[in-house]
Amino acid sequence: MKPAMTQGILQGLRIVEISAFVAAPLGAMTLAQMGADVVRIDPPTGGLDYRRWPVTDDGVSLFWAGLNKSKRSVAIDIATPQGRELAQALITAPGDDAGILLTNFPARGWLDHGALRARRGDLIQLTIQGDHLGGSAVDYTVNPRMGVPYLTGPPTHEGPVNHVLPAWDLITGQMAATGILAAERHRRRTGEGQHIKLALQDVALASLGHLGFIAEAQRGIERPRYGNDLFGAFGRDFVTRDGERIMVIGLTLKQWRSLCVATGMTEHVEQIGRQRGFDLDREGDRFRAREDIAAFVAAWAGARALAEIAAIFDSHAVCWSRYQSVKELVDSDAACSEANPMFRTVQQPGVGPVLSASVPLDFGTGRLPPEPAPRLGEHTAQVLSQALGMSEAEIEQLRSHGIIGA
Amino acid sequence: MKPAMTQGILQGLRIVEISAFVAAPLGAMTLAQMGADVVRIDPPTGGLDYRRWPVTDDGVSLFWAGLNKSKRSVAIDIATPQGRELAQALITAPGDDAGILLTNFPARGWLDHGALRARRGDLIQLTIQGDHLGGSAVDYTVNPRMGVPYLTGPPTHEGPVNHVLPAWDLITGQMAATGILAAERHRRRTGEGQHIKLALQDVALASLGHLGFIAEAQRGIERPRYGNDLFGAFGRDFVTRDGERIMVIGLTLKQWRSLCVATGMTEHVEQIGRQRGFDLDREGDRFRAREDIAAFVAAWAGARALAEIAAIFDSHAVCWSRYQSVKELVDSDAACSEANPMFRTVQQPGVGPVLSASVPLDFGTGRLPPEPAPRLGEHTAQVLSQALGMSEAEIEQLRSHGIIGA
Repeated sequence: MKPAMTQGILQGLRIVEISAFVAAPLGAMTLAQMGADVVRIDPPTGGLDYRRWPVTDDGVSLFWAGLNKSKRSVAIDIATPQGRELAQALITAPGDDAGILLTNFPARGWLDHGALRARRGDLIQLTIQGDHLGGSAVDYTVNPRMGVPYLTGPPTHEGPVNHVLPAWDLITGQMAATGILAAERHRRRTGEGQHIKLALQDVALASLGHLGFIAEAQRGIERPRYGNDLFGAFGRDFVTRDGERIMVIGLTLKQWRSLCVATGMTEHVEQIGRQRGFDLDREGDRFRAREDIAAFVAAWAGARALAEIAAIFDSHAVCWSRYQSVKELVDSDAACSEANPMFRTVQQPGVGPVLSASVPLDFGTGRLPPEPAPRLGEHTAQVLSQALGMSEAEIEQLRSHGIIGA
Repeated sequence: MKPAMTQGILQGLRIVEISAFVAAPLGAMTLAQMGADVVRIDPPTGGLDYRRWPVTDDGVSLFWAGLNKSKRSVAIDIATPQGRELAQALITAPGDDAGILLTNFPARGWLDHGALRARRGDLIQLTIQGDHLGGSAVDYTVNPRMGVPYLTGPPTHEGPVNHVLPAWDLITGQMAATGILAAERHRRRTGEGQHIKLALQDVALASLGHLGFIAEAQRGIERPRYGNDLFGAFGRDFVTRDGERIMVIGLTLKQWRSLCVATGMTEHVEQIGRQRGFDLDREGDRFRAREDIAAFVAAWAGARALAEIAAIFDSHAVCWSRYQSVKELVDSDAACSEANPMFRTVQQPGVGPVLSASVPLDFGTGRLPPEPAPRLGEHTAQVLSQALGMSEAEIEQLRSHGIIGA
């Protein structure tokens, strides 16, 4: 049994977030869900992402609620000089574990690193930017430039296919969390703060490079669209007799042999190998022979109902899965329910009950349950009092002048 | 100017990696590219991913080269008891900054956490697994279960569209790096090690939850396929007069107004708004009116060549980009060249020159250039000598018995 967890693994760490949309909020939320105290500063009317879809019938953003869980919210009108001064004071507030800013706002004006550093010499500032030159870009504009939309979708399709999941944003957000922790380790060892820049476009470029796409293109190979085929080995989607869709994988030799035995195609593929001069124990030859292999599997799967296939595949440890819609996932998949210890239903203000995920990292020392996102400005007075030692009268004055939210 | 960097920000940290494919190698490489000493242990004939496509004409894996940069390689035959003993000794070798294992192999047998912990009480072990129950899963089987393939691709398409980028793997890899650093921080403060589990499927589920997909489905909303449209605001791909493809975004109000001014559609969209009862200053109403808006932009873009559009868009700070293939990206985009300080051409053994990316995190304290991936087993003797104090004679004996690679 795990110990009951009341403090996360990052207990004590204090981060100010000034952000919008996916990457920066996700990076800070990852830290918050591990126990860091994350204070997100927004304008009293909400930031650029405060109404982002999906929304409830009342227009409350489920997106915002999802990406700001476990944080505290402070509402400051940073269009005013006093508001900017207040935000700077929060960013550079004292405390060994404080003095960390995660933002996707440009590092100029009131967020200029030099200006902030003048207030706190060991500040850690991580700025997510569009490209390495400081230009702006979003996941939707980075992706077309990477070539991935021309590799996605059916081979017969013309034109690009955008991804629906903002993958570059999601990777960048996690990398921001990594960068903050690395810089905080460095600061604890040396006393030195720093400004870290993380470009969304660089994350995409590096990912392509790491996976071999760049090296492949440098060697003159133009990879075409391969539809739903797994590149470089065997893997494809098939339709069952009862009209279900399944994905079937033969990436490793073990997976491949399981699939051959489960479908009874061992002899057949040996024949294919002999006829075409392939060694199908090699993943690359499986890819070359994929149409022949797929023809057999398609006939086999098409002759059986999903339940039968599932029983056979599972008894042979085949690597496979069934396609389902998000609705099916949410309605009937136990992995997407409180049966999975990562999930807990939280009461989200303005929304109601929401099945919410904590951080996927399941620490041996325990994992905090997910907390709802705050109401906008919910913690304004609390944070100003705790971090800056402000009195109720001072806070009331700021409020009456519209510098902070109600 | 940045200081010349000879040691990365994670200098001193020592990690043993026992892995294959994307997530675990990427997580460890991220730490290696920040200066950690990452020792990857593989069988003398290479692990499951040693031949993974893309490959050179000679069958050398560009994938493996991409995901193992800046590491040291140790070849041990872990099918033998002596090999397993040796690997355990490396995992639990002494040193304040050592005793960290990142793996996607099951935590049983010689990788059982209890067994390893008996050798080093403060071991940090991070195990990437398929699902939270410890079952196996890969990106290709997780994705169908998440519903995303039914949301991707043209609205007229039937059947699922797989993603080509292993997004779940990439996110999981970054999250593994975060988990290691969080646990290492905890160990430095408390002396306590731990076993962290990170399920690929949980990363996918949490991501869907964070973005609002789960909450939306819980409210009975079944999101259909929206093709290349940006969900919840305005954004779509268009064809120019000269047959180029562009992605055009009006997510924020500022982006939307820039687009209206640049294309001269301000009056037209006011008319649409009046006719249809929409306030197009609201992102959701822009999504509702997207067909009307897109009809105007399509005609405008179709009447102009890319060069003309680029000049107009850039002078109005429109949020847009051009679709290009991976080949175009690599051949002619300065962002994907040594003009981008993240990239450096490295000489990869068995491959030749490869444009390689370092970590996208651009630390104020400096960023290490990318190093090539090692040759398999390149550092076996060096690591056994340094970490375990073995003599040349001892190492030679292991080699002659086939326990370690040449």
